[in-house]
Amino acid sequence: MNVKGKIVNDPVYGFIRFPEAEILQLIDHKWFQRLRYIRQMGPAHLVYPGAVHTRFHHSLGAVHLMGKALDELKAKGVAITDDESLAARIAILLHDIGHGPFSHALEHTLVEGVTHEHISGLIMNELNKQFSGMLDGAIQVFDQSYKKPYLHQLVSSQLDVDRMDYLNRDSFYTGVSEGVIGYDRILQMLTVKDNHLMVEEKGVHSVEKFIIARRLMYWQVYLHKTVLGAEVLLINILKRAKELARQGKDLYASPALKHFLYNVITLQDFETSPEHLEKYCMLDDVDILASVKEWCSHDDKILSKLCCMMQYRNLYKVVLSSGTLDDLLAEKQAEVQQRLGLSPEETAYFVSSGIATKDTYNINDDKIHIAMKDGSVKDISEIDNPVVTQALAMTVHKNYICYIQP
Amino acid sequence: MNVKGKIVNDPVYGFIRFPEAEILQLIDHKWFQRLRYIRQMGPAHLVYPGAVHTRFHHSLGAVHLMGKALDELKAKGVAITDDESLAARIAILLHDIGHGPFSHALEHTLVEGVTHEHISGLIMNELNKQFSGMLDGAIQVFDQSYKKPYLHQLVSSQLDVDRMDYLNRDSFYTGVSEGVIGYDRILQMLTVKDNHLMVEEKGVHSVEKFIIARRLMYWQVYLHKTVLGAEVLLINILKRAKELARQGKDLYASPALKHFLYNVITLQDFETSPEHLEKYCMLDDVDILASVKEWCSHDDKILSKLCCMMQYRNLYKVVLSSGTLDDLLAEKQAEVQQRLGLSPEETAYFVSSGIATKDTYNINDDKIHIAMKDGSVKDISEIDNPVVTQALAMTVHKNYICYIQP
Amino acid sequence: MNVKGKIVNDPVYGFIRFPEAEILQLIDHKWFQRLRYIRQMGPAHLVYPGAVHTRFHHSLGAVHLMGKALDELKAKGVAITDDESLAARIAILLHDIGHGPFSHALEHTLVEGVTHEHISGLIMNELNKQFSGMLDGAIQVFDQSYKKPYLHQLVSSQLDVDRMDYLNRDSFYTGVSEGVIGYDRILQMLTVKDNHLMVEEKGVHSVEKFIIARRLMYWQVYLHKTVLGAEVLLINILKRAKELARQGKDLYASPALKHFLYNVITLQDFETSPEHLEKYCMLDDVDILASVKEWCSHDDKILSKLCCMMQYRNLYKVVLSSGTLDDLLAEKQAEVQQRLGLSPEETAYFVSSGIATKDTYNINDDKIHIAMKDGSVKDISEIDNPVVTQALAMTVHKNYICYIQP
Amino acid sequence: MNVKGKIVNDPVYGFIRFPEAEILQLIDHKWFQRLRYIRQMGPAHLVYPGAVHTRFHHSLGAVHLMGKALDELKAKGVAITDDESLAARIAILLHDIGHGPFSHALEHTLVEGVTHEHISGLIMNELNKQFSGMLDGAIQVFDQSYKKPYLHQLVSSQLDVDRMDYLNRDSFYTGVSEGVIGYDRILQMLTVKDNHLMVEEKGVHSVEKFIIARRLMYWQVYLHKTVLGAEVLLINILKRAKELARQGKDLYASPALKHFLYNVITLQDFETSPEHLEKYCMLDDVDILASVKEWCSHDDKILSKLCCMMQYRNLYKVVLSSGTLDDLLAEKQAEVQQRLGLSPEETAYFVSSGIATKDTYNINDDKIHIAMKDGSVKDISEIDNPVVTQALAMTVHKNYICYIQP
Repeated sequence: MNVKGKIVNDPVYGFIRFPEAEILQLIDHKWFQRLRYIRQMGPAHLVYPGAVHTRFHHSLGAVHLMGKALDELKAKGVAITDDESLAARIAILLHDIGHGPFSHALEHTLVEGVTHEHISGLIMNELNKQFSGMLDGAIQVFDQSYKKPYLHQLVSSQLDVDRMDYLNRDSFYTGVSEGVIGYDRILQMLTVKDNHLMVEEKGVHSVEKFIIARRLMYWQVYLHKTVLGAEVLLINILKRAKELARQGKDLYASPALKHFLYNVITLQDFETSPEHLEKYCMLDDVDILASVKEWCSHDDKILSKLCCMMQYRNLYKVVLSSGTLDDLLAEKQAEVQQRLGLSPEETAYFVSSGIATKDTYNINDDKIHIAMKDGSVKDISEIDNPVVTQALAMTVHKNYICYIQP
Repeated sequence: MNVKGKIVNDPVYGFIRFPEAEILQLIDHKWFQRLRYIRQMGPAHLVYPGAVHTRFHHSLGAVHLMGKALDELKAKGVAITDDESLAARIAILLHDIGHGPFSHALEHTLVEGVTHEHISGLIMNELNKQFSGMLDGAIQVFDQSYKKPYLHQLVSSQLDVDRMDYLNRDSFYTGVSEGVIGYDRILQMLTVKDNHLMVEEKGVHSVEKFIIARRLMYWQVYLHKTVLGAEVLLINILKRAKELARQGKDLYASPALKHFLYNVITLQDFETSPEHLEKYCMLDDVDILASVKEWCSHDDKILSKLCCMMQYRNLYKVVLSSGTLDDLLAEKQAEVQQRLGLSPEETAYFVSSGIATKDTYNINDDKIHIAMKDGSVKDISEIDNPVVTQALAMTVHKNYICYIQP
Repeated sequence: MNVKGKIVNDPVYGFIRFPEAEILQLIDHKWFQRLRYIRQMGPAHLVYPGAVHTRFHHSLGAVHLMGKALDELKAKGVAITDDESLAARIAILLHDIGHGPFSHALEHTLVEGVTHEHISGLIMNELNKQFSGMLDGAIQVFDQSYKKPYLHQLVSSQLDVDRMDYLNRDSFYTGVSEGVIGYDRILQMLTVKDNHLMVEEKGVHSVEKFIIARRLMYWQVYLHKTVLGAEVLLINILKRAKELARQGKDLYASPALKHFLYNVITLQDFETSPEHLEKYCMLDDVDILASVKEWCSHDDKILSKLCCMMQYRNLYKVVLSSGTLDDLLAEKQAEVQQRLGLSPEETAYFVSSGIATKDTYNINDDKIHIAMKDGSVKDISEIDNPVVTQALAMTVHKNYICYIQP
Repeated sequence: MNVKGKIVNDPVYGFIRFPEAEILQLIDHKWFQRLRYIRQMGPAHLVYPGAVHTRFHHSLGAVHLMGKALDELKAKGVAITDDESLAARIAILLHDIGHGPFSHALEHTLVEGVTHEHISGLIMNELNKQFSGMLDGAIQVFDQSYKKPYLHQLVSSQLDVDRMDYLNRDSFYTGVSEGVIGYDRILQMLTVKDNHLMVEEKGVHSVEKFIIARRLMYWQVYLHKTVLGAEVLLINILKRAKELARQGKDLYASPALKHFLYNVITLQDFETSPEHLEKYCMLDDVDILASVKEWCSHDDKILSKLCCMMQYRNLYKVVLSSGTLDDLLAEKQAEVQQRLGLSPEETAYFVSSGIATKDTYNINDDKIHIAMKDGSVKDISEIDNPVVTQALAMTVHKNYICYIQP
């Protein structure tokens, strides 16, 4: 992107425009530029080679959709001021700025107990200081304190522009056409009632399609078993590196990565001492990738083996089942422990288990409201002939085990 | 990609298949996996944020097109054996395996006097040893020694599958629709006559479109002035780092990158001592990106300034012109030298000049042969009503200067 | 299409090829050329102006998909002879050749009690005579008498290439992206077991998407209330014209159309006297459109009013509900009868009611078989976490009424 | 389209909106609805089966592009009032309303000496009366009398929205990807200077692509020799029918078509007697298609032969050449005259000759102005490194002959 300019070529949407100087300033900020080096889908490109797009690109796309959504609502008579528009666009621009390397995959490993939303909030506050209050409105929209809830709902809800962009974009870059959604149709069906975001009745089928697309993307892409295995592998690499750091072993790493490997940083630390945030904002995929490559020849046999698996794509074999996998797990643990001559603790790096889960549309949680022609408001699960039945709305759990291939 | 499997989802072509065990073995090789971490278009993503696709993906796509081209020729009665098909597919799979970090941008900077084709050749020979002669045929196709020249022409000529893939893929990922080519139409118009690749007369318009698309992609994308400036910046960074290395200064870098910074390696060195190739095959974009980020805070003011420009996207301002830029160059040199207090040698890192060049279709070079319905063979520039006139075929030179923005 | 040639440009699939002389001969036949003048979606273009594609185009597209399906199965080791391939391709080429003007809309009005499949069968037999037995195999595939049931299932089943083409094509031409299906993915997941067509386990999500796409197309397009109203209007026009014909009134019509207006032709008549089929094969949309335009100024006020409504797109207002509409129907009948001064019988032309219905996937009917990795065969409704639950599979009835707008 | 509604699904652009009541009223008018039954590309669907789209659809698409162009100019600070916007949108909506059956193919045959622009003008005046002056502004824009020439240039010039829509739409529906243009990019590069429409300098490549796309569409589609032959065939059919009418022979035809077959109507007649326009506005493709089908069995052997050729797609063989075809013409005339036992006058119906012509970009005619960054205005043919050279701009003539196949 030409940050000085206003038009960006997006293969997903065509031209997208950034007319506001405020948005351009934020895009130019080094903390936002950092997102250029964080892949949206972590290690999923090991399965879908096209899926190398970045958080940077996703954030720009979401701003574009936010603009279209706001234009649509204004065209329908919803009163939205220029300041509110800007606030909503800034809020979505920065909603993912707290993501660390490999996005979700390492979210709870690199810095335990701190989510990317926490850090996005911290960064937005810090940017607000640097830009003398320019983000006041955006922060209110982001943290739900603004008087018009639908603005926050556009940023984060069952039908927000974040999801619309990532479903579309991930579908586009993976080549999995099942995830393509008619985002323009949904945008044109959005409306506001009692300050809440809802969908016009005639948009019901489009919303259903959206929910289904999301479900199919989960099973085909986000919870693809090889992708799942690659994420577990990354997590195990970082766990082992931290273990070695705790033992005082030397590890090739950038200064910023070393900071988080050799120290335990808590959310409180982040809030009290600005150096942690500064260091965090130095991290991106490159730090991890550079270390993993070097660690392939580390003295620690476990770390080097895990890293070679990642670097040269010798991933875990993964079994996914809605039934129990306890017997298989025990069998694999015994087999690997003996074959590789490991302790039980060490074996855990090569045979892992867990639960893959997803909700398509959690009825008890946020609702997708439909503004019916007769003036009433219904949840989408209450309408006639729904695809989104009780059955579909259930949370689905699947057990998995990952183990090293012989 | 699931390397064990046979089908890959490619957003450009849909599903693509790799049925041959030999191809799958080569894809699994760590030297080929390396291409996952080399972006096809170097720093062009700084202008086109979608352009983050890799040499890995391009190579797979080119194999797919090669398969389609061979199928087409076979359907037209050209006798091609299974061994020849495999040889051609392996040759195109590996045609770019010698690329280093940032593809073309650093090709003549990191290792002087050694092209990526040289290294591709060295790697293919080494792989041929590892795989006990499996690449014999592919190497013959690649180095033009095989008896059927059209197989080499499919790998490398004015109308090869390499160009077809990269024009399409770069167009797709940048979102610049001007570069979309009707590759399926061109493939269906290919034919062989006297062992040479040519295009059927009725395919003339498709070829014209292809040539025009290439020209437009050059001006809009490949020679986009900001992209050009980013490439010059990268080159200047590496030049400065090597300069410092020559002075014995310490530089944060991976062992492999240090090898090429602190030593002068020639083509002869590559040929006589295998460790250089081994080290080279450790390099990818990550090594450069990791160093550039750290060098932002290097003691050397020139290196740190250049690296911050790259890392935080404060790129050179670039002027491109078919006329002379000598006056502007002198003016900018004087201005920058004084403002930053530099010597003339140091100033060259912040004010650079050069020539951007391209040929659309060099008449004197390779020709695109058209098999006319009357049995004759013409060059495309000789046919009736061509778009590709003498004028268009001329090499175009443009002068440019890059300079640091105040 | 250049019927002498072999390649057709299809906006949906790109180039499609027809290598077989037999297929080209049939395409050239005047009865097949007739399909050029029968729009695939009847009057749906009055709502979706892009939906003007023809049965001719759909039939070619379905042949293309059949070819891809057969190639896929052959690549998986299913033994299919060239004769069988040709038979299957001819069967799908001609599966819709019995359609009359406006496809489904007038199917039971123009000739009562005779479906288009009946007539397709009659035409195939007649063509078989003309082409000296060339269609023997195709007829066996079409009427299910051939020993390999999967060939028929490719022509007609829950997952046949007919549906794949029309869902895709109708989605493409209407611009309703909800109906786009990943047909290439489904094709690549097809397999044959015990001579029956099924889908590999890993294709389950693609099939689910297909079923959902179909459901959404029904509600958004095929049963769109304005489209429904236009179809009822056409039916009422033809009913009125036949009523007038029965009364001996004069009607502007082509000789072929007159034949079916002024005579009652049964299936038995078709089977015993070839002139009826010959006349039927003279009919296409043009005959109806030409008459409707002229009938706008017919003496009969009811006919002329209905025809002007159609010609100038003053369509019925339509109400669709899963509840009863009896009260609204009575109210509208009374209102219209009085306003227009009509008898109850005449009023029925301006106020109609009926049931719009569809099954997404009728569990009790044909099944979509999934070939599980463990060797078993399941119906798609029996697998884990299905979208296609019992609820979704239910037949949905909706009542509708259509009435003239004031 | 739902004429009461405001949103139409267009497969080319996605959703398009018609917010103005005036536009909706005009779309609802029976003279505009007539365009639903006039195919945009006449008989081209005989070669490209997807090309069945209509003038109706093209007109809506052009209105959409006009809206986008006006929005773009307004965003750049060009002062355009709501009345002017509406005038421009109405002007483009109605620019093709004067087209008769089969668009250009029969333009000079059915009514000699009267172009479709003449009739569009007459119809607009008549509509202006019916709508009490609502079209005053649109007529001024259309006939170039309005004070802001760029509005007319958007309707009709080298770079108007008419061309942008038809190139895109025809490319989309034929499946000939060579014609796809980056219309959004061109629209975003439009600007106004001294009240004239021009293109910003950085849009030069997009305009070049547009000109090339147009040229390729001409050679591949508009002047495709089989399409050309089908148009000549249609013309010859109408000529023969008029010849027979002049002789007082009976011809099956709708009353409106009879009016133009049995009478010679001049432009003056149109202007003085409104019944001719009224009759003309009854005509669409259906009248011709219905007659051609019946004339297949007409007593006149020449008419019936020509009509069967059209109806059953036994088209002329066509030879196209930049050289002379006089010898071939004489040979074919002699051969056909003897074989069919015809007089020289009659032979002309089966062996025709003519000149196919096109200009890509006629330098001497309208110019495409480029607003250079330095403030000057250049014609696109004057800029650096143009594709649009003198050579390309030349008018190209090709001779053709069409003759009946044995």
